[in-house]
Amino acid sequence: MIDIETIDTLKQLNIDVQGDVSSPSGFIAGGFHTGLRRKKKDFGWIYSTTEAVATGVYTLNRFKAAPLKLTEDSINSNKTLQAIVVNSANANSCTGEKGTQDALDTQAWVAERLNIDQQNVGVASTGVVGAFLPMDKIYYGTQHVLKEAYNNSQFFNQAILTTDTVTKHIAVQVEIDGKTVTIGGSAKGSGMIHPNMATMLGFITTDANIDANTLDYCLKQTTDQSFNMITVDGDTSTNDMVICMANGLAHNSEINALHPEWHKFVYAFNFVSQYLAKLIAKDGEGATKLVTAKVTGAPNVDEARKIAKSIVSSNLVKTAIHGEDANFGRIVTAIGYASKCIEPEKTNVYLCQVPVLEQGIHLDFDEQLLKERLTEDDIVIETSVGEGKGEAAAYGCDLSYEYVRINASYRT
Amino acid sequence: MIDIETIDTLKQLNIDVQGDVSSPSGFIAGGFHTGLRRKKKDFGWIYSTTEAVATGVYTLNRFKAAPLKLTEDSINSNKTLQAIVVNSANANSCTGEKGTQDALDTQAWVAERLNIDQQNVGVASTGVVGAFLPMDKIYYGTQHVLKEAYNNSQFFNQAILTTDTVTKHIAVQVEIDGKTVTIGGSAKGSGMIHPNMATMLGFITTDANIDANTLDYCLKQTTDQSFNMITVDGDTSTNDMVICMANGLAHNSEINALHPEWHKFVYAFNFVSQYLAKLIAKDGEGATKLVTAKVTGAPNVDEARKIAKSIVSSNLVKTAIHGEDANFGRIVTAIGYASKCIEPEKTNVYLCQVPVLEQGIHLDFDEQLLKERLTEDDIVIETSVGEGKGEAAAYGCDLSYEYVRINASYRT
Repeated sequence: MIDIETIDTLKQLNIDVQGDVSSPSGFIAGGFHTGLRRKKKDFGWIYSTTEAVATGVYTLNRFKAAPLKLTEDSINSNKTLQAIVVNSANANSCTGEKGTQDALDTQAWVAERLNIDQQNVGVASTGVVGAFLPMDKIYYGTQHVLKEAYNNSQFFNQAILTTDTVTKHIAVQVEIDGKTVTIGGSAKGSGMIHPNMATMLGFITTDANIDANTLDYCLKQTTDQSFNMITVDGDTSTNDMVICMANGLAHNSEINALHPEWHKFVYAFNFVSQYLAKLIAKDGEGATKLVTAKVTGAPNVDEARKIAKSIVSSNLVKTAIHGEDANFGRIVTAIGYASKCIEPEKTNVYLCQVPVLEQGIHLDFDEQLLKERLTEDDIVIETSVGEGKGEAAAYGCDLSYEYVRINASYRT
Repeated sequence: MIDIETIDTLKQLNIDVQGDVSSPSGFIAGGFHTGLRRKKKDFGWIYSTTEAVATGVYTLNRFKAAPLKLTEDSINSNKTLQAIVVNSANANSCTGEKGTQDALDTQAWVAERLNIDQQNVGVASTGVVGAFLPMDKIYYGTQHVLKEAYNNSQFFNQAILTTDTVTKHIAVQVEIDGKTVTIGGSAKGSGMIHPNMATMLGFITTDANIDANTLDYCLKQTTDQSFNMITVDGDTSTNDMVICMANGLAHNSEINALHPEWHKFVYAFNFVSQYLAKLIAKDGEGATKLVTAKVTGAPNVDEARKIAKSIVSSNLVKTAIHGEDANFGRIVTAIGYASKCIEPEKTNVYLCQVPVLEQGIHLDFDEQLLKERLTEDDIVIETSVGEGKGEAAAYGCDLSYEYVRINASYRT
């Protein structure tokens, strides 16, 4: 389902599609049902047996939810974490001072239960905006963290979901300094998904030995090519973040920019981010297809990203793809309003590998062939917009009746 | 259905909701079926018995359709028009040199038939992007322009529609210099509707005596408060424009910035623009409700516009309103990612006049009352974001199953 890029370095990856945040050495994940949701698990945890260096990327929405602010502050203060707890169903957002206190209480309860430093506990919430957390249920949840019966990473992967239809996780292994380094990830997405962080909850764990600044740099670089390049509905939520923990238990020599096997780690890390990001796009609310827009020839990467995002964000492109209609005019339109750098006479478009626009002029194409290719689950739109070196890919999904159904009745 | 602002000047307006582009003295409009569409009228015209000063606002999409470029050039060259022809069903966009020649031929045929200067003929197209115009049908259409049997302005109002469900038109009269000045307008909208001109086709006619520069200034000013403040799906088309003609037959003394009754004309002109813009938003593809977002307290008008547009553009807000769900968290989210100027603790939100957020914190509200108000056709969201003087209103619609149905099957 997910294309694996044919870079030599990636061939050296050992990919485990069953893997997740619990795959790297020393990480335990689990989940529990506290009653925030009717039946589904709604409270999850990740725990590292040793303190891990940590970093995060956070929503750009000006309304930041209380747990997000607390986690951001905690990570910024000492660049470490040892545990993360996550609840679904309620976002603890727009909840003022009480919301802040509720997040702090959650953090304190977990720290006490695990006997670790309070600032080493990350807290994340996802769900409805604008309601107070039922703290009795949250307390009940915190008292079950790390209980043997619930230490099952699939429970964690399930507990963080909202309207997602599938769990999203991956792990990869790569040899560094002759040691096996594992990177694992688990994520949730589905709605309110749009570039600029604020796209989802993502958790990436690794047993690599890596300093906090390098980990931070890796996360930010790969986020710009993965989580920030997906969109479901163009809405940037108040809660979403990607948190990354590295506990060093692989015992490689510390990874930094001068490490001879630097690229292996970065490519593996990027693979995990992109894989999770594509899973989120493909499982967008109501989605039936993954839509990938690849742009080349832009004056720079920023313009290429703008154009790629514009294509996968267009409701008209998304509905045409849902209807399996070769309405490439909508793609051209979305390109045309994306960037001032567009010169129509230098623009070419391929839809499912069929050329539909050349130098700004529509082409005759085999309507039947294209119609058939549009029935596939994986739709690729390729655009070249000039001779520049700017390239980017963005990921989205189609827009269906189901998206409307889900979102016209979500809260009540 | 449309609120008339309670400004004294507007009380002096004589509003004719049956009126349209043919209402001002000396204007004739009509429409005809050439076969571009199966049964519906698809070719329309506006004609002024005397040469009129003219101006336009045009799409910002980098792919500009051939007829739009030709009309823009024609108006720029002599700032006059005497006729406009419009076809629906085919946009003549992404059609290269052949498309340019087709637009030129259309213009020439009309000029010849009416015995007027070719540059005094405006040409507009709307419909599918990326197909050549069937010029035999267009020729056939041009040979019927101004034929008595088809000189019916309702035929014009119908001929310019695509997926619109209703015709959109208005006329107002105002006394200037003791003379009755009439301003009429007709428009089409429905899909590919988004701020920054490129929102629709709009035609405004007036018998006012006004110089071309003043007319241009009026159109641009009112466009920023009307056509540029509506959105249906965030897509900016390659073809859309608003064209304005003034033929002077009201015989008022020439309107310019120093004219003592300047405001009367500007308010009347703005009323026509806003009325048409709201009709377009309300008749967005699949729409069941008009959504108005009013923003106050922003640092400046530009920021206020960004925030207002963000609210009415959010798919999650649009689906919640479709579902009549008081999910105000989505409104708050759309505010939060709209502008860096947002300070949550200074932000208040009213949904259908019910306060739901105060100083960034959610309020308890009467869920039943709000649920009832959300069943109405006209949903108003009011937001104050601080103490600044920036105010704006944006207009949109809900997002329904019907939008998906229309757009998953439009082209084929």
